[in-house]
Amino acid sequence: MGTVVAPAPAKPTVLRVAAISGSLRKDSWNHGLIRAAEELCEESIPGLQIDHVDISNLPNANPDLETDGGDGFPPEVEAFRARVLAADCFLFASPEYNYSVSGSMKNALDWASRGSVKCWADKAAAIVCAGADFGGGRGSLHLRQIGIYLDIHFINKPELHVRAFDDPPKFDAQGNLTDAKTRERLKRVLLSLQAFALRLQRKDE
Amino acid sequence: MGTVVAPAPAKPTVLRVAAISGSLRKDSWNHGLIRAAEELCEESIPGLQIDHVDISNLPNANPDLETDGGDGFPPEVEAFRARVLAADCFLFASPEYNYSVSGSMKNALDWASRGSVKCWADKAAAIVCAGADFGGGRGSLHLRQIGIYLDIHFINKPELHVRAFDDPPKFDAQGNLTDAKTRERLKRVLLSLQAFALRLQRKDE
Amino acid sequence: MGTVVAPAPAKPTVLRVAAISGSLRKDSWNHGLIRAAEELCEESIPGLQIDHVDISNLPNANPDLETDGGDGFPPEVEAFRARVLAADCFLFASPEYNYSVSGSMKNALDWASRGSVKCWADKAAAIVCAGADFGGGRGSLHLRQIGIYLDIHFINKPELHVRAFDDPPKFDAQGNLTDAKTRERLKRVLLSLQAFALRLQRKDE
Amino acid sequence: MGTVVAPAPAKPTVLRVAAISGSLRKDSWNHGLIRAAEELCEESIPGLQIDHVDISNLPNANPDLETDGGDGFPPEVEAFRARVLAADCFLFASPEYNYSVSGSMKNALDWASRGSVKCWADKAAAIVCAGADFGGGRGSLHLRQIGIYLDIHFINKPELHVRAFDDPPKFDAQGNLTDAKTRERLKRVLLSLQAFALRLQRKDE
Repeated sequence: MGTVVAPAPAKPTVLRVAAISGSLRKDSWNHGLIRAAEELCEESIPGLQIDHVDISNLPNANPDLETDGGDGFPPEVEAFRARVLAADCFLFASPEYNYSVSGSMKNALDWASRGSVKCWADKAAAIVCAGADFGGGRGSLHLRQIGIYLDIHFINKPELHVRAFDDPPKFDAQGNLTDAKTRERLKRVLLSLQAFALRLQRKDE
Repeated sequence: MGTVVAPAPAKPTVLRVAAISGSLRKDSWNHGLIRAAEELCEESIPGLQIDHVDISNLPNANPDLETDGGDGFPPEVEAFRARVLAADCFLFASPEYNYSVSGSMKNALDWASRGSVKCWADKAAAIVCAGADFGGGRGSLHLRQIGIYLDIHFINKPELHVRAFDDPPKFDAQGNLTDAKTRERLKRVLLSLQAFALRLQRKDE
Repeated sequence: MGTVVAPAPAKPTVLRVAAISGSLRKDSWNHGLIRAAEELCEESIPGLQIDHVDISNLPNANPDLETDGGDGFPPEVEAFRARVLAADCFLFASPEYNYSVSGSMKNALDWASRGSVKCWADKAAAIVCAGADFGGGRGSLHLRQIGIYLDIHFINKPELHVRAFDDPPKFDAQGNLTDAKTRERLKRVLLSLQAFALRLQRKDE
Repeated sequence: MGTVVAPAPAKPTVLRVAAISGSLRKDSWNHGLIRAAEELCEESIPGLQIDHVDISNLPNANPDLETDGGDGFPPEVEAFRARVLAADCFLFASPEYNYSVSGSMKNALDWASRGSVKCWADKAAAIVCAGADFGGGRGSLHLRQIGIYLDIHFINKPELHVRAFDDPPKFDAQGNLTDAKTRERLKRVLLSLQAFALRLQRKDE
């Protein structure tokens, strides 16, 4: 084996996190979780950068809208797919509607699964949610099942299902996360996502 | 026990079945299953009448679009809710997208769950689906879980998951069900739905 | 329409409820839920009678232990199956182990599903559970999926997932249900089960 | 930064795979899948070594059998836990009973989840199954949900659900895998498991 020259010190990897809220409500708690994640990353998680992706303008998934043999999409869908594809990992803020994910969340997941370019595939993800009762926990299990076919690798722990109606209050009227303990739990989710995404990225070394 | 005189023969009950396909594709197999169900009911199931409800014009579910303290909805949603409410039972033709129901199906389920009038509640339903692989079977399990909170009573048997790519062909290019055996299986689903809906209706007698 | 003579008043139907706890722990909360259900039925629900079925002595399900072409079973299994078959409906007190039902519960469900006599089929059931976190809610969703193939008809509402670690305390050290509010919620589950079982029984009238 | 000396060539990592069949049947197809995996590893996958772990002698999971404050177990359980703990990753051959995993499989999963040593945690796994209908596919989804709490990282692709009753025959009467195509699919599962386990192991480098 020949001489080996020391590699230059690696630049710290900054992972791009596409963050998607499944709610269309303006004051949604789930939007609030993503805003809090943005703040946390800016303040204290140097290697993570949140890209808050809006899904409210996507048409309903319909293969009849696809062109180019299944690889052309309406412009809003193309733009959405590009941001999913550019991401290193995902943060889903997923409201639970009727024991499952919202139709809008499912729609977004489906659009980026179409065509020959698999936008979600082989990337790490975390799910957070806020809601009544189980705090969105049933919906997050459906999202994990959906992710099998999309080939998403979810972190297992910690889970964050915010029981939004329990005392003390967790969100203000605009959906901003105001509870410090929940914010700390959210930070641990982000750190776990970062660590898992980095582990998975090492495949090519 | 005294003498009992036979009651006059009851008029046959005709149950209205709201039939909903979760696909937006024009030539969808799932639309085709509903058209076949309509034909079967007209030909040979006197007590069932299919109302094929289109969901393609529904906006994405968003509580911000609700008015009147949560009991007012956009006109397309009002019209959809009225047909769900008027139905005696349901037939879901549910495509499987990424191991779950389609976003459009979920969206429709969610809209009719909102407000103080529970449009789905306490009614019988059957799920049929056509697809690759398990024929939509994973998505039907998600739909059943969604139905718990909606208070839908699904028939357990028979199940109909049409493996659309298996020989012999099941559908033509327009999504019409052409396979006689599958049509016979669909008929048994409808008869089971009818029997279960009638059992459940007897609560008030 | 001819003269109709009133039928003799029907004897009140007493429904036999096979009640099965999925825990093997002596002081299990889930046993405690069944004991509370027994008390409630004796005190104030005349038409329901609980048969508390112990499953701790069942061998692990294994088709190699079956005889008579699949219709003979070890004696403990035969005895268990007879009580399931004799029941009009079911109450499952189902602990959640690792996000699903316990192995013992699954084993019992499987044994009574074997052979040509379908012991569970076409009967009503309710699930109650006590646990940490979601109070057993994830496991109850798995139990519902298992019930599809067994052809069990679960009530949808109310659900009872007792969060056993939340204040105020719900159980004493022996697993006896001591919280009055939870007892009242359990009673509503039993009344809903009774009503649903009676509706389903009317099929033969 | 100082001089860096080339590291010695790494010894090829041999990953130990604890392989667990959820069936107790002597001639089980799922045992057969594990035997085939053993042969494949010996023949052509140098870095994987199967440890076929028998679970038939485990008592039913019961916290009352635990000693030492929750860290002592019956001898059969201790032996089982030691092999799970020693494994680098897992291969589950999971029969589907009534739309879920077998009670025996669940029992084994639960035993190794108890106590302060988390035997399953943070390891890769693959699920294979053979059965009627969906080839065990519904049960594998339940197993994935169980694995969230156990902190198992399942490969997403490829999936192997062997439809054992479809032509051509897949197994002989002793449950040996005889179909070459299925054997090739099993090999691809093993290679995917190996690659994923190696990726996850790099966390400490």
